[in-house]
Amino acid sequence: MRGTERRDHLKERLVAAAERAIAGGGLSALRARDLAQEVGCALGAIYTVFPDLNALIIAVNSRTLAMMDEVLAPGTASDPAGRSATDQLVGLASRYLAFAATHPHRWRALFDHRMPEGETVPDFHLAEQVKLFTYVEEPLRALCPKLEEGERALLARTLFSAVHGIVSLGLEEKLVPMPMKILQQQLASVVRAAAAGLLKGVPAEP
Amino acid sequence: MRGTERRDHLKERLVAAAERAIAGGGLSALRARDLAQEVGCALGAIYTVFPDLNALIIAVNSRTLAMMDEVLAPGTASDPAGRSATDQLVGLASRYLAFAATHPHRWRALFDHRMPEGETVPDFHLAEQVKLFTYVEEPLRALCPKLEEGERALLARTLFSAVHGIVSLGLEEKLVPMPMKILQQQLASVVRAAAAGLLKGVPAEP
Repeated sequence: MRGTERRDHLKERLVAAAERAIAGGGLSALRARDLAQEVGCALGAIYTVFPDLNALIIAVNSRTLAMMDEVLAPGTASDPAGRSATDQLVGLASRYLAFAATHPHRWRALFDHRMPEGETVPDFHLAEQVKLFTYVEEPLRALCPKLEEGERALLARTLFSAVHGIVSLGLEEKLVPMPMKILQQQLASVVRAAAAGLLKGVPAEP
Repeated sequence: MRGTERRDHLKERLVAAAERAIAGGGLSALRARDLAQEVGCALGAIYTVFPDLNALIIAVNSRTLAMMDEVLAPGTASDPAGRSATDQLVGLASRYLAFAATHPHRWRALFDHRMPEGETVPDFHLAEQVKLFTYVEEPLRALCPKLEEGERALLARTLFSAVHGIVSLGLEEKLVPMPMKILQQQLASVVRAAAAGLLKGVPAEP
């Protein structure tokens, strides 16, 4: 193998090893020494292909976002066409819950990872996150047709955040955990209630 | 001072020092060595009054919950009597946002702290958390009078989680942060929408 090929090969194996570590035990399970041992390279070799572990975590989180994208994108088997906007929103929320419950460590890593002081998340990675919000925008277009583009994007992010909160605290084992069936029902009830309210017109301050 | 008094005094000073550390920089700013230095005791002396740092964190989180309780409890100056159930819910949500924005590290510590594998949060601390949900139950009693007690408690927790998600991701600087005024409006809009939907009857699965 030539130099660049060798580098790409090492990079790929490191991301795969980091992915296994995070999927198995979350961010705290990621240790440079273990990665080096698993892919059979020197500890210092990691830093010849990644500037630091943050770059490696972002590479894994990108893969997680791609997996989530497959689950959330409309028009899949679990999201039949022709449903009402409300049913589409409930469907998105319940697929998000299912993803989080199936891949808890990967999913938490998306939210737990922080860049070091003074550094920002790369633009390509922000774009991957923002893309997921756009799936919420489509049903909102039907639900609140009068909403202006920018307002719709904001509302999509806010509804996503509300669903994320319900899923996140619902799966949290620190509080008394909610049984999955109850959590699914609660999530659907609140999304339906919000959709019913939005259908009547986005409520403004009185 | 007698032995027990001296112990209580050390305990009190350690909690105060831990509180300052967490309020200033979050859980990661809490280091046993710094605490010992600040209160002027030996490192080992900490563990004569607290079994471990988790117990100290729980003591600080209890104080944070008490502060939050003062802000969220109904009937305060910022929560005038006689408002509609919807306005009460919007008021609770916006006071929660204000608390989180004013005390970001203290507030995140409530959610970021994890007990070590196999240990559970003490009951008194769970009760302090559950008490906050009850403030959401009161307006729900007026909004959904037909809801049975247990269902109302579940819905209160779910609505709290939705508000927490909006506040948490809205204040998150990793995503493009939302300006406070926009965040306040978004939070109020979604709470109003959910309340309007709930007023029509808790939506069931179709």
